[in-house]
Amino acid sequence: MSGTFEVIERVGVSTESIAQAVRNAVEEAHKEKKVAWFEVVEQRGRVTSEDKVEFQVKVKIGRKLN
Amino acid sequence: MSGTFEVIERVGVSTESIAQAVRNAVEEAHKEKKVAWFEVVEQRGRVTSEDKVEFQVKVKIGRKLN
Amino acid sequence: MSGTFEVIERVGVSTESIAQAVRNAVEEAHKEKKVAWFEVVEQRGRVTSEDKVEFQVKVKIGRKLN
Amino acid sequence: MSGTFEVIERVGVSTESIAQAVRNAVEEAHKEKKVAWFEVVEQRGRVTSEDKVEFQVKVKIGRKLN
Amino acid sequence: MSGTFEVIERVGVSTESIAQAVRNAVEEAHKEKKVAWFEVVEQRGRVTSEDKVEFQVKVKIGRKLN
Amino acid sequence: MSGTFEVIERVGVSTESIAQAVRNAVEEAHKEKKVAWFEVVEQRGRVTSEDKVEFQVKVKIGRKLN
Amino acid sequence: MSGTFEVIERVGVSTESIAQAVRNAVEEAHKEKKVAWFEVVEQRGRVTSEDKVEFQVKVKIGRKLN
Amino acid sequence: MSGTFEVIERVGVSTESIAQAVRNAVEEAHKEKKVAWFEVVEQRGRVTSEDKVEFQVKVKIGRKLN
Amino acid sequence: MSGTFEVIERVGVSTESIAQAVRNAVEEAHKEKKVAWFEVVEQRGRVTSEDKVEFQVKVKIGRKLN
Amino acid sequence: MSGTFEVIERVGVSTESIAQAVRNAVEEAHKEKKVAWFEVVEQRGRVTSEDKVEFQVKVKIGRKLN
Amino acid sequence: MSGTFEVIERVGVSTESIAQAVRNAVEEAHKEKKVAWFEVVEQRGRVTSEDKVEFQVKVKIGRKLN
Amino acid sequence: MSGTFEVIERVGVSTESIAQAVRNAVEEAHKEKKVAWFEVVEQRGRVTSEDKVEFQVKVKIGRKLN
Repeated sequence: MSGTFEVIERVGVSTESIAQAVRNAVEEAHKEKKVAWFEVVEQRGRVTSEDKVEFQVKVKIGRKLN
Repeated sequence: MSGTFEVIERVGVSTESIAQAVRNAVEEAHKEKKVAWFEVVEQRGRVTSEDKVEFQVKVKIGRKLN
Repeated sequence: MSGTFEVIERVGVSTESIAQAVRNAVEEAHKEKKVAWFEVVEQRGRVTSEDKVEFQVKVKIGRKLN
Repeated sequence: MSGTFEVIERVGVSTESIAQAVRNAVEEAHKEKKVAWFEVVEQRGRVTSEDKVEFQVKVKIGRKLN
Repeated sequence: MSGTFEVIERVGVSTESIAQAVRNAVEEAHKEKKVAWFEVVEQRGRVTSEDKVEFQVKVKIGRKLN
Repeated sequence: MSGTFEVIERVGVSTESIAQAVRNAVEEAHKEKKVAWFEVVEQRGRVTSEDKVEFQVKVKIGRKLN
Repeated sequence: MSGTFEVIERVGVSTESIAQAVRNAVEEAHKEKKVAWFEVVEQRGRVTSEDKVEFQVKVKIGRKLN
Repeated sequence: MSGTFEVIERVGVSTESIAQAVRNAVEEAHKEKKVAWFEVVEQRGRVTSEDKVEFQVKVKIGRKLN
Repeated sequence: MSGTFEVIERVGVSTESIAQAVRNAVEEAHKEKKVAWFEVVEQRGRVTSEDKVEFQVKVKIGRKLN
Repeated sequence: MSGTFEVIERVGVSTESIAQAVRNAVEEAHKEKKVAWFEVVEQRGRVTSEDKVEFQVKVKIGRKLN
Repeated sequence: MSGTFEVIERVGVSTESIAQAVRNAVEEAHKEKKVAWFEVVEQRGRVTSEDKVEFQVKVKIGRKLN
Repeated sequence: MSGTFEVIERVGVSTESIAQAVRNAVEEAHKEKKVAWFEVVEQRGRVTSEDKVEFQVKVKIGRKLN
């Protein structure tokens, strides 16, 4: 690892699993620019109008600058 | 969101997944009174006598006060 | 619970789920010596060269001393 | 201070100020049973459909048991 | 451990020791319903009008639901 | 709530109140793109050269991606 | 900013607002010696005997040494 | 509670108990000026040259200003 | 203090007091190798089948390497 | 300080010192837009293939919003 | 270690290194009264008008009382 | 990164710099077994009998198991 990295924060959402909510956020960021690492920093959620538990997972995502 | 909300704390248990432990706690609270949101605050567990990994997940649950 | 316990720290890895990364760390420690409890303390990860999201989950593991 | 105290958690809501959101939660709890002390533990919010900033303030509230 | 657990918060008070303040809170909760575990989360206090140091200890208490 | 959210961090400034410092940061971010939620994460300040207390409030702001 | 700074801790009290409780603590410290910056570190309170919500706000205050 | 309070930090030491280490710090501060409240913020220690466990307990202590 | 130190984590158990639970963990580690310092990092417990409150105290323990 | 500030997060890297890793991140951000302040939030690292200790330091960086 | 200790908080400043900022604060406190130990609790900074990175490091400093 | 990792904790000591204290701990651990990553978790110190500031830096160190 050399050079400087940016760290951005995203919230991924899924009714399937916490891992899937993470993947939604990380894979979307990875399409924009190669992801070097991520950190899960918060796991929240709600019950949807169809009575499903929805996971909202906040991740910090590190990507190389330039 | 208006009015005041109560926040209660529950621990859901599952040998299947962390998400399932969350669902067990949240869905049980939702049956009593509509859940507005939840926050995962601790993830612990043990190995059962059948050598299964059991997840014990502590969640804060927000519900509207009448 | 009586007697003294040791607490060790391990990082389990899985591309499948956070629960599976926990199981990998806990079951390996359990083979060495019976695990009394565990606590998930950090969830990080990376994107592999095959563009898979890999979970790296840090767990504290409690085991009875002697 | 003597005897045991219960600690409950409430979220008060206000578009006016953070102090007013705290008051809404604490005064409602005080009507049920005399409040001994409170602690502000989280300050969040949203923008309402009328473009107003709404404060949602989580408070722990201590009250004497029995 | 199976099924869901509630987690409540209490503050026990004692001029004798921190352990006694914990016992006061936990034993009172145990009389209402069997306590599964507890966690000490805050230790505060004051000097009484008789110049005694009084301990006020906040504990989270886990009990089985139903 | 569905899709992914970005979380940005801003510091709003006001000599009037903490709530006004939050509003300054949140309303400015809301003009750029609709704000879904915010979290107050730090409250600092200084005394200005006119001896006024100035509040500098750090907020995390969540907004829908695309 | 050069030279060394002292950091002291004060609790300001107000029934009006959280900002006013901060001002009470900071302005009093400023009269003793010029305040360089402050940080709000805790917000607690009580209900007074006249049923008013009183805010007790703990601030760290930085001032230049000599 | 009205007026402003100072908060100082002390470490009390005892080989007898954690409560006694707290009392040593709080009672000494109380002799200088009336203590309004205290908070235990850290519990450390060492083994003395006579193989005794010594507790070193850090407390924040609140006292009324003037 | 010179050279490098290892830090291990242990949980001591006692129904008598928190201090005794610390001593159980620290003295056992001290018999293996001279303890330089310890830090109390968690205080939990349970009610035993004889209705006794049992303290389980997690300590970090520092010892000189080689 | 007036107006609103953005807070971004960067990771600077250096095998020389922690200060140099901070400088790498802060000076690069400063070239893009004048830096008002920074906060060190995490210090990690690795051993390189040439057996050098590499510091990876995460900083929050505050800059004025136009 | 016996007797009671005071803990004060200082911010040392240096453009050279984080260690030098710590030394500035600790050595100044040591001249006033013998320092028993210190803890680094915050590392912040700014870019000076000459485009130099300045480190501002907050330390807690323990000294024997009387 | 695949397989499971152990995480150990060490305190490195240096009067030269914080970076050197980290290197002392990490390089010693690296000689025993290849270090994958490290995290700085605490920075403390003392003034030596020759009036030198000594840094004591606690690091978590990750190494591959087997």
